[in-house]
Amino acid sequence: MWLTIHLVKALLPDKRHLTIDEVWEIYKNDLFRVEEQIKKDLRTYVPLIDAISNHLFHSGGKRFRPLLLILTAYLAGYEGNAHIELASVVELIHTATLLHDDVIDEAHIRRGKKTARMIWGNQASILVGDYLYTKAQCRIVSFHNHELNEIIADTTRRLTQGELSQLSYNGDINMTEEDYLDIIGNKTASLISAACRIGALLGNCSDTQKQGIEEFGWNVGIAFQLADDTLDYIADKGKLGKSICKDLQEGKITLPLLKLLKKCNKEEFARIEKIIHDFDFSEENLRYILDNMKRYDVIDYALNKAREFIGKAKKGLSLFNNSIHLQALSTLADYVVEREL
Amino acid sequence: MWLTIHLVKALLPDKRHLTIDEVWEIYKNDLFRVEEQIKKDLRTYVPLIDAISNHLFHSGGKRFRPLLLILTAYLAGYEGNAHIELASVVELIHTATLLHDDVIDEAHIRRGKKTARMIWGNQASILVGDYLYTKAQCRIVSFHNHELNEIIADTTRRLTQGELSQLSYNGDINMTEEDYLDIIGNKTASLISAACRIGALLGNCSDTQKQGIEEFGWNVGIAFQLADDTLDYIADKGKLGKSICKDLQEGKITLPLLKLLKKCNKEEFARIEKIIHDFDFSEENLRYILDNMKRYDVIDYALNKAREFIGKAKKGLSLFNNSIHLQALSTLADYVVEREL
Repeated sequence: MWLTIHLVKALLPDKRHLTIDEVWEIYKNDLFRVEEQIKKDLRTYVPLIDAISNHLFHSGGKRFRPLLLILTAYLAGYEGNAHIELASVVELIHTATLLHDDVIDEAHIRRGKKTARMIWGNQASILVGDYLYTKAQCRIVSFHNHELNEIIADTTRRLTQGELSQLSYNGDINMTEEDYLDIIGNKTASLISAACRIGALLGNCSDTQKQGIEEFGWNVGIAFQLADDTLDYIADKGKLGKSICKDLQEGKITLPLLKLLKKCNKEEFARIEKIIHDFDFSEENLRYILDNMKRYDVIDYALNKAREFIGKAKKGLSLFNNSIHLQALSTLADYVVEREL
Repeated sequence: MWLTIHLVKALLPDKRHLTIDEVWEIYKNDLFRVEEQIKKDLRTYVPLIDAISNHLFHSGGKRFRPLLLILTAYLAGYEGNAHIELASVVELIHTATLLHDDVIDEAHIRRGKKTARMIWGNQASILVGDYLYTKAQCRIVSFHNHELNEIIADTTRRLTQGELSQLSYNGDINMTEEDYLDIIGNKTASLISAACRIGALLGNCSDTQKQGIEEFGWNVGIAFQLADDTLDYIADKGKLGKSICKDLQEGKITLPLLKLLKKCNKEEFARIEKIIHDFDFSEENLRYILDNMKRYDVIDYALNKAREFIGKAKKGLSLFNNSIHLQALSTLADYVVEREL
């Protein structure tokens, strides 16, 4: 790993922006070790667990959260090995939430592959989700570090609270932008921010720098979900492995729609309200909503909002000297919004 | 609490066996405090969480695990207040497993009331289950005690591993008695034993005594599930709030059936095998199985097996002097097997 980094340092001029592919390449050895750690952790005598784990961890996930933990640990000057185990814990928790989300959303496909529930059923998906949470917990408490324990406990609580808030607001167009930000903060930013906090915790940086890394994680997390929710109104089938307007068809109200409801006239409002109330997502109705989103420019509004959060995120890192890790974090942050545009 | 105990001590001759109702009466104040703690812990700004929590914690659960924790803490000489919070954590975890179990078993009724999933749906039940787990975790890590953290992490892992093993063996008559004991050890005895271990941990007793309390908990836990599984073949509707042969109809193979399959002749074996293979649980088929269970005396076999575990459990407590708490534990242990006979 260090050899790769030094090589890259020698080859790259200080100010050159790393591409996302370069970032994955530079840290691929760390990420490989995370995969190995996960495999080792999930080996049991219950074949069902092994089968589902294999399926889950070979589904081409980007390992975005582990990479953030690794990068922030390096940024904070960490030189040990605990970052690998801790990155695997964060990925276990993330995967647990995906398993439960897929049951809740009755999802058929994730990352272009059948979901675990379509192969092994909802029962197994719920229980393996629980199992991944508890394995993560076992690994975390073995570090005997109270701050770590508290970060993980509080983060998992926020994850489920966010999902529950989202469920409460299902199909409810009275949700405010504040409610929306609260939900995505809990359900998405909390774990991304936790990955960064844990990275900072491992290292040896000042409290202000730790605070900066945490702010970076939180704002990247908000931007990540904002972008994801917006891409749902523009992504074409295949690109994100999902079809357009999927969130809306599940009753999830996200920023583009909230903004549209604010900007449109009374007549349009009434029609959109009726579509959602009746859960009548015919092609004609979806086209009506998409056309109005274009007309009122709400997609650009939401993406620019995401970019604002990326700007705030980068400010969090302003107290660190330039380094390959800082450049990589900056590239990752940009990628969060620009990934599929 | 202490007043009640001293009063009882004064009134009861040393050797008199407490009835189960006397036990609930003596410790009702502690259990009331556990209820209050749970209510306080689950107050949120998400109405859905509040509604489901209220439903769950007013469903007439016996609070068997909290009482075990309280009794073992007193037995170990504990005089502080942490036992209340810790007992509430154990009940939160237990309730989380019930929520997920009900979704997995597609249960309509629990303790004579509609299950949460029948009122609020599977989605909310899965997520509130997750939420209760994470609230328990938040509470536990706040104690800053590594042993406690490890007990809870390992116990929740075992709970889900047990459920997953059970799911793997669904409808599989090749399961051995060893597999069965492994499953009920994980899915039931682990949490009951954890409650007792935590009680012992709070107190001030020797390592051998701690070991004894742990063995008590483990064996009571095995007996509890053994009795539960056997009652499923004898309980009449209403008494346990569930109908007869429910486990079998869900494909769960338990000790009475395993024993029957061992004792019956080839022809009977083939018919039972076919019934389970076809999931054909007509009244006639269930009657056939129940009649054979009677004929081969497997219900008594299973109940006696449960009583053996209660015997082992009580041996675990032989290092303690007689006290009201010891008597209460002994009464509780007997109750586990004799409750509905």
